[in-house]
Amino acid sequence: MVNLLYLPLAAGVLSMLFALYKFRWVKKQPAGNEEMVEISNAIKQGAMAFLRREYRVLFVIAIAVAILVTLPEKGFMNLVAVSFAVGALFSGLAGYIGMRSATNANCRTTEAARKGLVPALKVAFNGGSVMVLSVVGLSIIGLSALMIIYTRVFGTDVGTLNDTVIPILSGYSLGASSVALFARVGGGIFTKAADVGADLVGKVETGIPEDDPRNPATIADNVGDNVGDVAGLGSDLCESYIGSIIGAVTLGGTIGDSRLVFLPLIIAGLGVIVSMIATAFVRTREGNDPQRALNFGTIGAAVIMVIASAPVILYLAPETYSAGGITYTNMGLFYAIIIGLLSGVLIGIITEYYTADGKKPVLDIARQSQTGAATNIISGIEKGMLATGLPVVMLAIGIYVAFLAAGLYGIAFAALGMLATTGIQLAVDAYGPIADNAGGLAEMAQLPAEVRERTDKLDSVGNTTAAIGKGFAIGSAAFTALSLFVAFKEKAGIEVIDVTKPIVVAGLLIGGMLPYVFSSFVIGAVGRAAFKMIEEVRRQFRTMPGILEGTQKPDHVRCVDIATQAAIREMIIPGVSAVIIPVIIGYMGGAEMLGGVLVGVTVSGIMLALFMANSGGAWDNAKKYIESGAYGGKGSEAHKAAVIGDTVGDPFKDTAGPAMDIVIKLMAVVSLIIVTNIPA
Amino acid sequence: MVNLLYLPLAAGVLSMLFALYKFRWVKKQPAGNEEMVEISNAIKQGAMAFLRREYRVLFVIAIAVAILVTLPEKGFMNLVAVSFAVGALFSGLAGYIGMRSATNANCRTTEAARKGLVPALKVAFNGGSVMVLSVVGLSIIGLSALMIIYTRVFGTDVGTLNDTVIPILSGYSLGASSVALFARVGGGIFTKAADVGADLVGKVETGIPEDDPRNPATIADNVGDNVGDVAGLGSDLCESYIGSIIGAVTLGGTIGDSRLVFLPLIIAGLGVIVSMIATAFVRTREGNDPQRALNFGTIGAAVIMVIASAPVILYLAPETYSAGGITYTNMGLFYAIIIGLLSGVLIGIITEYYTADGKKPVLDIARQSQTGAATNIISGIEKGMLATGLPVVMLAIGIYVAFLAAGLYGIAFAALGMLATTGIQLAVDAYGPIADNAGGLAEMAQLPAEVRERTDKLDSVGNTTAAIGKGFAIGSAAFTALSLFVAFKEKAGIEVIDVTKPIVVAGLLIGGMLPYVFSSFVIGAVGRAAFKMIEEVRRQFRTMPGILEGTQKPDHVRCVDIATQAAIREMIIPGVSAVIIPVIIGYMGGAEMLGGVLVGVTVSGIMLALFMANSGGAWDNAKKYIESGAYGGKGSEAHKAAVIGDTVGDPFKDTAGPAMDIVIKLMAVVSLIIVTNIPA
Repeated sequence: MVNLLYLPLAAGVLSMLFALYKFRWVKKQPAGNEEMVEISNAIKQGAMAFLRREYRVLFVIAIAVAILVTLPEKGFMNLVAVSFAVGALFSGLAGYIGMRSATNANCRTTEAARKGLVPALKVAFNGGSVMVLSVVGLSIIGLSALMIIYTRVFGTDVGTLNDTVIPILSGYSLGASSVALFARVGGGIFTKAADVGADLVGKVETGIPEDDPRNPATIADNVGDNVGDVAGLGSDLCESYIGSIIGAVTLGGTIGDSRLVFLPLIIAGLGVIVSMIATAFVRTREGNDPQRALNFGTIGAAVIMVIASAPVILYLAPETYSAGGITYTNMGLFYAIIIGLLSGVLIGIITEYYTADGKKPVLDIARQSQTGAATNIISGIEKGMLATGLPVVMLAIGIYVAFLAAGLYGIAFAALGMLATTGIQLAVDAYGPIADNAGGLAEMAQLPAEVRERTDKLDSVGNTTAAIGKGFAIGSAAFTALSLFVAFKEKAGIEVIDVTKPIVVAGLLIGGMLPYVFSSFVIGAVGRAAFKMIEEVRRQFRTMPGILEGTQKPDHVRCVDIATQAAIREMIIPGVSAVIIPVIIGYMGGAEMLGGVLVGVTVSGIMLALFMANSGGAWDNAKKYIESGAYGGKGSEAHKAAVIGDTVGDPFKDTAGPAMDIVIKLMAVVSLIIVTNIPA
Repeated sequence: MVNLLYLPLAAGVLSMLFALYKFRWVKKQPAGNEEMVEISNAIKQGAMAFLRREYRVLFVIAIAVAILVTLPEKGFMNLVAVSFAVGALFSGLAGYIGMRSATNANCRTTEAARKGLVPALKVAFNGGSVMVLSVVGLSIIGLSALMIIYTRVFGTDVGTLNDTVIPILSGYSLGASSVALFARVGGGIFTKAADVGADLVGKVETGIPEDDPRNPATIADNVGDNVGDVAGLGSDLCESYIGSIIGAVTLGGTIGDSRLVFLPLIIAGLGVIVSMIATAFVRTREGNDPQRALNFGTIGAAVIMVIASAPVILYLAPETYSAGGITYTNMGLFYAIIIGLLSGVLIGIITEYYTADGKKPVLDIARQSQTGAATNIISGIEKGMLATGLPVVMLAIGIYVAFLAAGLYGIAFAALGMLATTGIQLAVDAYGPIADNAGGLAEMAQLPAEVRERTDKLDSVGNTTAAIGKGFAIGSAAFTALSLFVAFKEKAGIEVIDVTKPIVVAGLLIGGMLPYVFSSFVIGAVGRAAFKMIEEVRRQFRTMPGILEGTQKPDHVRCVDIATQAAIREMIIPGVSAVIIPVIIGYMGGAEMLGGVLVGVTVSGIMLALFMANSGGAWDNAKKYIESGAYGGKGSEAHKAAVIGDTVGDPFKDTAGPAMDIVIKLMAVVSLIIVTNIPA
């Protein structure tokens, strides 16, 4: 069956070629007038400069991490470091390609928006899908290639797979996760520092509109959209893809059937093909609602995935397999995929309810804004906490039913099933910042108002789907973390992880606390970086009075620089801690305590991630609802209160929240890699 | 050894007599002029009216709960319902007595404050200690009396204790916990609705000072201090006391030595004596810092407890006992008490750092208030999240070391050790609202400014110690919940609760989510009730223009009524859910899933409780710091931002946060009671 691994490899290559085609297509579109090109170039330079500096720091950290986790290994196990390097490289590359494409697409989307909504959607969506296609392509190329090479070297019997091939392959996942976490945290800090800084001095203090070219932080704000929402997202998606595959592969190995080791890679290859097809579904006609086009793509991907996976599973999976004393049939795996997709879609729909414009929670928050910022904040926190309820119930049911259908392996398979739709949903997530940038460009280049209206329309559509995508990301993170955790236990050689044992309880408590402290660091970092940005913008307005009169150009390079420095400095502590803590606890407290920590991190992290994503999303849309004219509209007291809520929600939903699902998986992968060296 | 149980019974009676003596002493103090007495009576009537209506609803709910949990029991097990009734009655009674005393003490403290700080402290502290003394007295009287009766009826061999006596005794803990939860939630909603309502219309909209007699919600605000911070606290403390004893008793039974069943009661009796002595330590001279007097009482109680428990343990505990295949000596129990006290004190000190005036976190929040409410809120959330870090590490270490010293029983014993100091610390917690009321009275009766200054001084001292008390309460809740949880597993007849089993994971996730949804309900309830209060106050100002001119009396009865109705209606859903959910999950999902739920609730609940208590406390003190003149002082933009933070923190620290540790224990007790009837 190893030879079949050339199929996902081929799918990956195909996906890269398709991405290249789209990349070139975008590049060929008209880029607009000279001013637009100039601004777009400034954004691109800022973004690339950030990425270069970030990757330079990451390079050093990656080497340290590689040494740390592989140091106690002897001989061949240093191949873990090789896998790690490939994973880190590919994850970084995925972010880089996505950002190149996005920064090409921004001015071209603006230019297309002069003609209409449909051409603008086409450019923005193609620009975004370059990232998704390269992410899934690179992930699967790396994984299949390494698997092919390692099995050639070591062999394909299941004992070798379990003891040698899979452990060294896990390094690939670690590499991808590490880079993803730094990219998410660094990018998240950059984008929110610039956003908050630009808004507070520009809109609030000076009273100039958003994206006004006179504001020195405007370019930094637009750079932030790219480095946070595109490059960060790309690395994030890359690690989700790889993490869920590694989880399934490891559990497949413990069942003792090599077919179950290779199957996840082939299913993932299928997901790549599905992603390619689904991007073709997203098209709309002038006058139609672009949201429908996006929904069509998402649902289409899910349906195709289900249909296509049936024959693959029936032909390639063993007809029956035994795990934990129970015999499962291959149909169970098919059901597991459906369960994964279904719970993902349901969680997405629920998340949409809690954050969407026009639904009760958002209307409630908007109404509560009338009595001031305090009631707005209280209401947003209340809704966000409530929004953890149903998704978690769905998750619990999904996990249990997937287990009934196909054993623990079924849980990993459910996560795999989500991949196809995650890909297409995140293409939407990736197209949002392009539309956002395009709007900024229209404003800065002083194009007619209708252009801005069209890009705003595109942007608002992206927001809802992005919220669904976030719910989906949390769901798949939970499934993946759980399968990695189960794999950890299997490898640790401990029978059970019993929560009535004090050492496990101690681990649980510490694990439950870590997401809070992590979030605290990240939220604090945004605050500190924004404070520096505010000071710089104030300084420029004070020392260069010509800026506001329009006779002097603001020094936007300086602002980009401040955000870059702050983001890179602040990402190091939380990022490194997430890798080091499992290592310290594993060696000091043993595998059982580390197991407790992993469970605690997962449970607490999922809740915080859901809470923060939902509160943040709801505050954002409550503000937008008021801006559309409710309760006095822009400039009213209710609006001021809603702006405060939105600002509080920014680091919640765009920095700490999205980092949480990477932290959960990263800690599980680190533990899985060190497990054979720590005391039971 | 059963006869020794008359000792704690006697200690309980002694404590009640001491409480009666102090109650009368307070009553004998001068109550001030006619106006003061009139206002004090209005507060008293409002508080009593609330309590009557609350208890009437509670009576109905208590019967329903008693039927629910005891329905599947046959024959003698209906004694669970009897124990339940006694527990519920005593918990309610403790709250009632405390509130009677507090509403007597308020005007007398004001009157004493006309003479000086020392007499005022004496009256307020004696008023507060009546509650603590009756709480600990009633708790131990009920528990020892029931134990004596049940052992007389059924016998004292350890098998009978395990199978009959201890299970029916657990009903006592359930009764106390149920009442405590309703009292905490109902009282918490009342006090914060009145507080927020009074402040938003009075201070912010109309610009009249706090506690101004023209504000119709002022009396309701002062009533709230009593029903929330006194009656709610009394029931809460009562359930902590009983819960930790029941946890230890149950675990003692599983070891198979009846001496270990009776010992916790005797240690608790000792704690009652220590509480009595410690209240005598709290005295100060004019010019000295009253905080020092309170600290002296707290530390004194801890030291006496340690010294006095040594001979008790050495003489009454078995020299050695075996549990989990390990043999422990009785010295281990002594160490466990020290560990409990030590981790309690350390958690308290850390909590103080994060919330105290003049320390970095509070200063940071105050500084961040300069750039507006958004940065104030972000900063408060950041500090609150960070503040979960060290206390949780302390807790984890404490749990593990207590286990090493004396086995799982040692964890329950560590919680017992905390009791003595919890008592005295909560006396301080109880004296805070009396000082607060006294200040309100001084304002309303227009006494000289120095009186208000003195009561403010008293109040601010209480605040810091109250924050420590909250950290302590969370710590002991964690220890107690854990011992109840271990007892649950022992009784369930399951070997382990393995977190790699999907049914347990499903339970964990649902359990982790419940504290969020619960908090959401409670926080939302405060918002809704406050909204009604705001409307009523606005209506009175509008329809009775004479109020603000001072020619017409406001209708404060109506405001008290609104808060009462809202609080009672809103407490039902969260309160009933906390009892019903474990029952539903137990019967539908089985003991293992319920075990997962309990662990999830405990881990997630502790984090949220710490986060909310610390954020709320820090916001409060940041506001006070600015009011003392920093960053422009009262009325500045920074102050407005800080007031918003404080308002957000109110339901955090005074409603949802304190309810959390009751929820944790209540769910564990319910589970422990139903455990023999649910599927394993």
